[in-house]
Amino acid sequence: MYTAGGGSMDSKVEFLFLNEEDMIKAGVLDADRAVDTVGEVITLLSEGDYLMGGRAHNDHGVQLIFPEKSDIPNFPLADSADRRFMAMPAYLGGRFHMCGEKWYGSNGNNRSIGLPRSILMMMLNDVETGKPLAYMSGNLLSSMRTGAMPGLAAKLLARDDSKVLTLVGPGVICRSSLRAIMSQRFDIDTIKIKGSSPTSANAIKMKEYIEENYPQVKNIVLCRDMEEALKDADIITEAVSCKEGEWPEYKREWLKPGALVISTSTFNMEHKSIVDLKKVIDNYGMYENYAEEDNVGYDENGNRLHTGCMGEDFVYMVQDGLIERDSLTTFGEIIRGKKPGRESDDEIILVSIEGMPTEDVAWAYECYTYALVHDIGTKLKVWDRPYAF
Amino acid sequence: MYTAGGGSMDSKVEFLFLNEEDMIKAGVLDADRAVDTVGEVITLLSEGDYLMGGRAHNDHGVQLIFPEKSDIPNFPLADSADRRFMAMPAYLGGRFHMCGEKWYGSNGNNRSIGLPRSILMMMLNDVETGKPLAYMSGNLLSSMRTGAMPGLAAKLLARDDSKVLTLVGPGVICRSSLRAIMSQRFDIDTIKIKGSSPTSANAIKMKEYIEENYPQVKNIVLCRDMEEALKDADIITEAVSCKEGEWPEYKREWLKPGALVISTSTFNMEHKSIVDLKKVIDNYGMYENYAEEDNVGYDENGNRLHTGCMGEDFVYMVQDGLIERDSLTTFGEIIRGKKPGRESDDEIILVSIEGMPTEDVAWAYECYTYALVHDIGTKLKVWDRPYAF
Repeated sequence: MYTAGGGSMDSKVEFLFLNEEDMIKAGVLDADRAVDTVGEVITLLSEGDYLMGGRAHNDHGVQLIFPEKSDIPNFPLADSADRRFMAMPAYLGGRFHMCGEKWYGSNGNNRSIGLPRSILMMMLNDVETGKPLAYMSGNLLSSMRTGAMPGLAAKLLARDDSKVLTLVGPGVICRSSLRAIMSQRFDIDTIKIKGSSPTSANAIKMKEYIEENYPQVKNIVLCRDMEEALKDADIITEAVSCKEGEWPEYKREWLKPGALVISTSTFNMEHKSIVDLKKVIDNYGMYENYAEEDNVGYDENGNRLHTGCMGEDFVYMVQDGLIERDSLTTFGEIIRGKKPGRESDDEIILVSIEGMPTEDVAWAYECYTYALVHDIGTKLKVWDRPYAF
Repeated sequence: MYTAGGGSMDSKVEFLFLNEEDMIKAGVLDADRAVDTVGEVITLLSEGDYLMGGRAHNDHGVQLIFPEKSDIPNFPLADSADRRFMAMPAYLGGRFHMCGEKWYGSNGNNRSIGLPRSILMMMLNDVETGKPLAYMSGNLLSSMRTGAMPGLAAKLLARDDSKVLTLVGPGVICRSSLRAIMSQRFDIDTIKIKGSSPTSANAIKMKEYIEENYPQVKNIVLCRDMEEALKDADIITEAVSCKEGEWPEYKREWLKPGALVISTSTFNMEHKSIVDLKKVIDNYGMYENYAEEDNVGYDENGNRLHTGCMGEDFVYMVQDGLIERDSLTTFGEIIRGKKPGRESDDEIILVSIEGMPTEDVAWAYECYTYALVHDIGTKLKVWDRPYAF
């Protein structure tokens, strides 16, 4: 069987290295195509044509978790936001038929030395032999595939006449979500930005970015508080980076009828207040895994504690009998026509997106095959023949 | 703080690519030094100066597990021995102070097309920033670090007058164990080989390899069965690759007094028969994790089912009250003088070694630093400045 770059009958192993500049040449920043690609991923997921980690095939990955403190000299500590390493392997089927893995380290302090918070590398591997096919800079790849899912949500679930977009947590992920949403929704003329403050550097940078790139946007509002940010919005997309437990609180009454609320990161809403809203998720099994691992309890009033992760909260709502399992809809069910998407102009829809390594594999595959055809990148040899040990 | 290759205050990211030939130049095949290095790893493990995956810091890694069958066209299946992908991240402290990850795909059918069963790549990353520092061919690295542990066991726990070495499962790992054991024990004059049959290609290749490389070995015996292989042996080291449940069976009465039995892969011994033998392991927490995940039951006679993994079986023996937790000794406790190693010439000692990504990080670090100093390998740039997204 033919697989791109692999499957040949000789023992030579070589792979393609794509640095960040190569990745840009290979189309990694094409938001519209990224939205289409993650749509394909979601369909394959819905058909079970994928593998993630572990026996249930739904592990999101494995993390190195730094401790808060240690008696050991020089031991690395959880002393900044998001400090961790993570390995995220996956197989994706269909036309992709590809294994791969994203591996990254994050440290909130990186910003102060001119580096991104996370530095990511992506590998693609031949499914049959395990051969490395590509080793690529993963930062733009990961941002674009992450933003592509809110783009897909906006395409499938927003009101067609959406005009007001709200960005909560205006960092790199939110910017990529903006790009993807703007590639799908052409009538947006107002963008509201909620940073840590109206004058936060990220909020101001986001405003300037929109002014430069989207002249059709007539109003850009730097919001003082969450209520101001959420009210009147047709589409809300959030990508907040904060410490555990300090997730922002959204209130149901701040949402206008017909709003689409997209979460790629963390916030809380009172469970009882969202029982009747439509809930869309990317992968139920993955959130079940989270819920099983975290196994959060209840407060003194018998209310389930929040997790910050909307999809995980949905699983607890099912377990607590607040909603039926069947009331949750996956993107795949919508794309394949098994369940409806938006059913009325007034419906409020909550979307939880966690991001999966299957999406990285798909978008990496697209960039890799483009690079192969257009001779982009550096070919590197692992061996001509393996050393006869 | 200085870290090799990282820690500089600019935003450029570059790493060193080392192919298999580079790795050889960088010393990856130096068995004696590999034994010393894994000895350091074991000491750091014993001091808690490391991280592996998950909240308990002891996850061995995350696997893509292929199903036995699938209705989906073209879905990859568990249709050969060892077919899997696995990501194994770790942090190692001490003088290493390094994060890294081994990522590999395995397929027993690779042999038929001239490729190793597993194709492994290794990454090293700066602990503080997550920057990639090295991307290296991992096959020799992984074999050598895996063999180094039996070498360390032979150094610490074999009788000083050991003359007879038995190799069970004479593949790549066994060959690397042989190299490491021969680098520590100079009186070995007889080597017994137990392959799938006395005329198996691997057994004969191993015999030829020993004849070429170890002229001091006067007798090389291709064994017909396990009893012949185990009896009279001073040191037994095994690295058997077989299907789940088809693990070879060892009997206590086949072991001579003073024997050292080293397992890096799979075999079974009746639990009751090994209660009084000294048991040495590399990392208790890791085997506890395995036992918790597998949670194997009992047969119709109330005997605990076997797992093939000796260290995991030890955990069940503790849980079943056959032995005390304290009767298990770790390498680290021996190296640090907290528990005795061999206490008499007649003592039979069982050693279970699973292999941990901390060992990969250590041996990769040694090769990487050597390569840096000696200008080996290819420097590759990820970016000069990250793309201002």
